[in-house]
Amino acid sequence: MTSLPPVAVVGPILVIGTGLIGTSIALALTRAGVDVLLDDVDSDQLTLAVNMGAGQVVGVKRSQTPNPTIVVVAVPPRFAAEVIAQASKDFPTATITDVTSVKSGILKQAIAFGADESRLVGGHPMAGREVSGAVGARKDLFDDRLWIVSPCHETGALHHQNVNNLAITCGAVPIDMSPQEHDEAVALVSHAPQVISSALAAQLLPAHAKHIAVAGQGLRDMTRIAASDSSLWVDILTENAGPVSEVISGVVRELQEVLHALQELAGGDQDHEEIIDATLKAGVKGRARIPGRHGNIEAPFIEVAVLIEDKPGELARLFVAAGDAGVNLEDVRIEHVLGKPSGLVELSVKPDVTDALIQALSVRGFDVRGTG
Amino acid sequence: MTSLPPVAVVGPILVIGTGLIGTSIALALTRAGVDVLLDDVDSDQLTLAVNMGAGQVVGVKRSQTPNPTIVVVAVPPRFAAEVIAQASKDFPTATITDVTSVKSGILKQAIAFGADESRLVGGHPMAGREVSGAVGARKDLFDDRLWIVSPCHETGALHHQNVNNLAITCGAVPIDMSPQEHDEAVALVSHAPQVISSALAAQLLPAHAKHIAVAGQGLRDMTRIAASDSSLWVDILTENAGPVSEVISGVVRELQEVLHALQELAGGDQDHEEIIDATLKAGVKGRARIPGRHGNIEAPFIEVAVLIEDKPGELARLFVAAGDAGVNLEDVRIEHVLGKPSGLVELSVKPDVTDALIQALSVRGFDVRGTG
Repeated sequence: MTSLPPVAVVGPILVIGTGLIGTSIALALTRAGVDVLLDDVDSDQLTLAVNMGAGQVVGVKRSQTPNPTIVVVAVPPRFAAEVIAQASKDFPTATITDVTSVKSGILKQAIAFGADESRLVGGHPMAGREVSGAVGARKDLFDDRLWIVSPCHETGALHHQNVNNLAITCGAVPIDMSPQEHDEAVALVSHAPQVISSALAAQLLPAHAKHIAVAGQGLRDMTRIAASDSSLWVDILTENAGPVSEVISGVVRELQEVLHALQELAGGDQDHEEIIDATLKAGVKGRARIPGRHGNIEAPFIEVAVLIEDKPGELARLFVAAGDAGVNLEDVRIEHVLGKPSGLVELSVKPDVTDALIQALSVRGFDVRGTG
Repeated sequence: MTSLPPVAVVGPILVIGTGLIGTSIALALTRAGVDVLLDDVDSDQLTLAVNMGAGQVVGVKRSQTPNPTIVVVAVPPRFAAEVIAQASKDFPTATITDVTSVKSGILKQAIAFGADESRLVGGHPMAGREVSGAVGARKDLFDDRLWIVSPCHETGALHHQNVNNLAITCGAVPIDMSPQEHDEAVALVSHAPQVISSALAAQLLPAHAKHIAVAGQGLRDMTRIAASDSSLWVDILTENAGPVSEVISGVVRELQEVLHALQELAGGDQDHEEIIDATLKAGVKGRARIPGRHGNIEAPFIEVAVLIEDKPGELARLFVAAGDAGVNLEDVRIEHVLGKPSGLVELSVKPDVTDALIQALSVRGFDVRGTG
């Protein structure tokens, strides 16, 4: 995002929960000039958020608080429903939204706890970082990201629009999904992959160290998210148990077919290659459906491969050449062969600057190996 | 590798098959000053390898060929056993080795086809590239990589040593494993992960495009290898069906336990979080057993996180600063949040230069966010 997003909401907006996401929303709103009020049961996080310029502490007595137009509940999933319901009671005219990564169950619980469904709109900004807490918050965390907006059956149009405008003001792109559709989508692209990564990584626990020592980049990529915080994930998976179990059932069925074929092959029966081939080919096609390498649907990037010498300063020389040509590098990937960096560097750039980059590198004597 | 590896073999060495691995071995041997003879049924590949300086074409009549000390069979897996057996007959004093990614079956078949077991030693250099053919070959492909050496029961000590020395001369680190142990190790770290990646990616095939559009880096990492060439993988999985099915069985068992717990939870029974937690925790521990981030067991790298502005020239400025400090960057990773590049760049460096790098960046005003 090169310019600031439009300011589509009026304040004050109350953010309850000043962790990574809550504080980042507050910073994005402050950037837009919107008044932000902050609240958190953890006074250290709250003080840190205030010191970062994320907003002002809400009054101790709710009655003394200026009436917020929108309340954003950004607390951990297991507290979300209760906090939503309380906010709905405390601020009887405000639009109430949240940021939790599961929607159906939490919204239903919040309504059961007394939240006013007509003012309730689920939300899920599709951004995060590997660090947590206010300390990791950034005002540009949501720039150009998707922000899923999930209205309830009874949500009023104005409140729905308020949350769309909240996302836009934070720099994001709002995308409507029903709570159920949201939960199915994240089960497929996020929650089930987490379980599968963990199940694979769990196989390494009893393995010989010598066997693990020959691991390459493939296993590293497949088990990266297995290192995630297990307590947070237990909450998420528990909340989204139905949709996640649907996806995992599909994976288990696919694996069982391959397993059966492999066992027959191991037993000497040679007529089972087709089943394995079918799964592999379905995987190639399924993988190809993921839009772009960078999730940027509109402008996929082009990768330019350059072979450089493995010595200090060579990468700098490469990047200076790109910078001199006015080319912004969207991504850099150094090819790893069985874990070891090699001299092949892949630069991702927008398609319209590819030629300029290749020419700039070529005249400086770089060994450009191709694009893809 | 900063200096050339020791020359531990005498030529001539015959390389049969001038694809990526065969030609790279030939180039590594030529670099070491060892005479190399080349053979391939594909005359285009052969000519290309010769033109790249990988060696000389072997005589048309085998009887006119200088007697090779070692024959390296580097043909596709489905032809390997036959070619090994023929080489064993053609060159009755040579050490015979191969480079295929499955060992037990191929060595057994080669012996069944008449190969002399006393001179036969399986080999598997743990290096590769995403490109194939002689055109992708590099003389330094094996520098500092592991090269698994798998002697047969009857292999003579001298021939075993010859293959160790071949690996060393090519710049690699030989590691002994029996053919069975090799196959179990690669089933765990490479072959089973391939199947699992494909099975997950296959779930995307019938999914709604809108659901896939919210995919983040996790799904991308988990399905990257699913894009691999399916025909090559059918061969590998078929050859290593037994060990691969063992690993997949373990993954399926783990997934079924989680699946059962999720289904109970979805049905309203709340007492199943512990089973999910156990799998997630086992995954965290299993993942932690992978040595280093880069597979470099001796010298794991330190990651230095730096926040930079997202504009042309900033990366260059960062890399110039590192180069000026004489620091070689082992890897560069730009943090992607839901697919979008952010301003957080992680530089991987050797531990002993970490302080120098941080100081060099700090005095130039870079926002160093920490190390890990």
